Amino acid sequence: MAEIVTTGTALRAAVQMARSRGLRVGLVPTMGALHAGHASLIDLARVRTDFVVVSIFVNPTQFGPQEDFDRYPRSFEADVALCRQHGAALIFHPSVEEIYPAGFQTFVEVTALQRRWEGERRPGHFRGVATVVAKLFHLVQPDVAFFGQKDAQQCRIIEQMVADLALPVEIVIGPTVRDADGLALSSRNVYLTPAQRQQATVLWQALQLGERLITAGERDAHTVVAAMRRHLATAAEAEIDYVAAVDRRTLEPLTRLAGPILLHLVVRFGATRLLDNLPLDLPAGEAS
Amino acid sequence: MAEIVTTGTALRAAVQMARSRGLRVGLVPTMGALHAGHASLIDLARVRTDFVVVSIFVNPTQFGPQEDFDRYPRSFEADVALCRQHGAALIFHPSVEEIYPAGFQTFVEVTALQRRWEGERRPGHFRGVATVVAKLFHLVQPDVAFFGQKDAQQCRIIEQMVADLALPVEIVIGPTVRDADGLALSSRNVYLTPAQRQQATVLWQALQLGERLITAGERDAHTVVAAMRRHLATAAEAEIDYVAAVDRRTLEPLTRLAGPILLHLVVRFGATRLLDNLPLDLPAGEAS
Repeated sequence: MAEIVTTGTALRAAVQMARSRGLRVGLVPTMGALHAGHASLIDLARVRTDFVVVSIFVNPTQFGPQEDFDRYPRSFEADVALCRQHGAALIFHPSVEEIYPAGFQTFVEVTALQRRWEGERRPGHFRGVATVVAKLFHLVQPDVAFFGQKDAQQCRIIEQMVADLALPVEIVIGPTVRDADGLALSSRNVYLTPAQRQQATVLWQALQLGERLITAGERDAHTVVAAMRRHLATAAEAEIDYVAAVDRRTLEPLTRLAGPILLHLVVRFGATRLLDNLPLDLPAGEAS
Repeated sequence: MAEIVTTGTALRAAVQMARSRGLRVGLVPTMGALHAGHASLIDLARVRTDFVVVSIFVNPTQFGPQEDFDRYPRSFEADVALCRQHGAALIFHPSVEEIYPAGFQTFVEVTALQRRWEGERRPGHFRGVATVVAKLFHLVQPDVAFFGQKDAQQCRIIEQMVADLALPVEIVIGPTVRDADGLALSSRNVYLTPAQRQQATVLWQALQLGERLITAGERDAHTVVAAMRRHLATAAEAEIDYVAAVDRRTLEPLTRLAGPILLHLVVRFGATRLLDNLPLDLPAGEAS
């Protein structure tokens, strides 16, 4: 029966107790509205560690002023049930004031990796993410922390922050969990109308199309991206935000595809932005 | 005999060994060029903790492009001797590449507290300080870390960072150590000509003058600051950078003096900037 704590002090006491029993501590940071993607991270954490902490905190600093902080889905009772069902040991559910008390003014920024893609479209978003994750790491001091591949840029930013600042935590990225028709699970999928939900299958189809072209030998990024865009355009309400083939480490766009790459895209349906991506490992490019 | 380590890996192994023996770990971060002020912090750390780590790292990110990074005094052999004499257990002396490997891009900023005073005059300075201190905290994971009151704004910024990000470390501020004539010890005092060194006593004299006026009942900040400035002006080569009476928590300038305050000042002698300050505890102001 996972205990629920709301303060840093209670959190630390509970984690300290677990650690003194020799348990390895895992952390799954979430914004609640938990779905099977989060559940898979908790499952993974249960395999890799002995005492799994799930944080549930809708972090205001990662939302822009025009974004959906207020209407972001909140389902705390169901979230607690899911955490318990999957064997979480502790749920950390702090107030905004607990994380950001009056006078709060310290921020962590991962500068180069946040410049493009989501960072460009959501100014301040990754500063908010890096800051709250750093704080959660300090509060919980987990041995391992778990994030979902669906937010690929977030994953890279957190890995880079951990490496740069020597944060004493191992980062594990769990694979994207999808609905039966391929749509990546996201707490924001509930915003979709039934028609949009149906059309949203084009995201995963486009990624699979890109993979097929690459597997067949295509190495020109523009050709692959153009084919993916054409497929996305078949969905009536889809507005493409971006589609790109990038270096998986730097997230910089590629012209020739080689080595560890990421196909990633964002498509808007009305006001709802859907993200998806596919990491691929290609042979290293020829020295040119 | 304090061991010298140069990599994060060796550092962590040595600290881990100490911790497994039940020792409390103290950290004294320095840029080397150690003097009696640093020695007093090591002494303090020896009283408060069992295993004292001294880091010696001239941190490039806290120097501006026009500043004295290249000519900053370096005296590693003497520094090691001083650390050993004062009972440090471990000296961490990393290369720049060890702390900032290729691709490093993560920074910590304490936003409001860095706006004025040194932060205004040295853009990026406190970002460099906060970043390297956060990284040292992650590498060493000390129970207690020790800083000198002479760098008052740095002390406040580090305290704020630790509180905001919930860094699991206690911060202890050691009092400023002075030469017999009152000049605050600083690694940069070696830049002074003999004539400047003699005149530099006006800093501490001005602070004492300010304290005397306040003790006698003066509560108008402008009156106190004006008297201090007049005294500083008696030194032929002194150029006042700033003199102010500030709220000790926010470092914002005060008009009426009340509660915990700080008198602080910076005076230039040629290219050398000398800092000094005096914290004072006054009765709380009347509600107005």
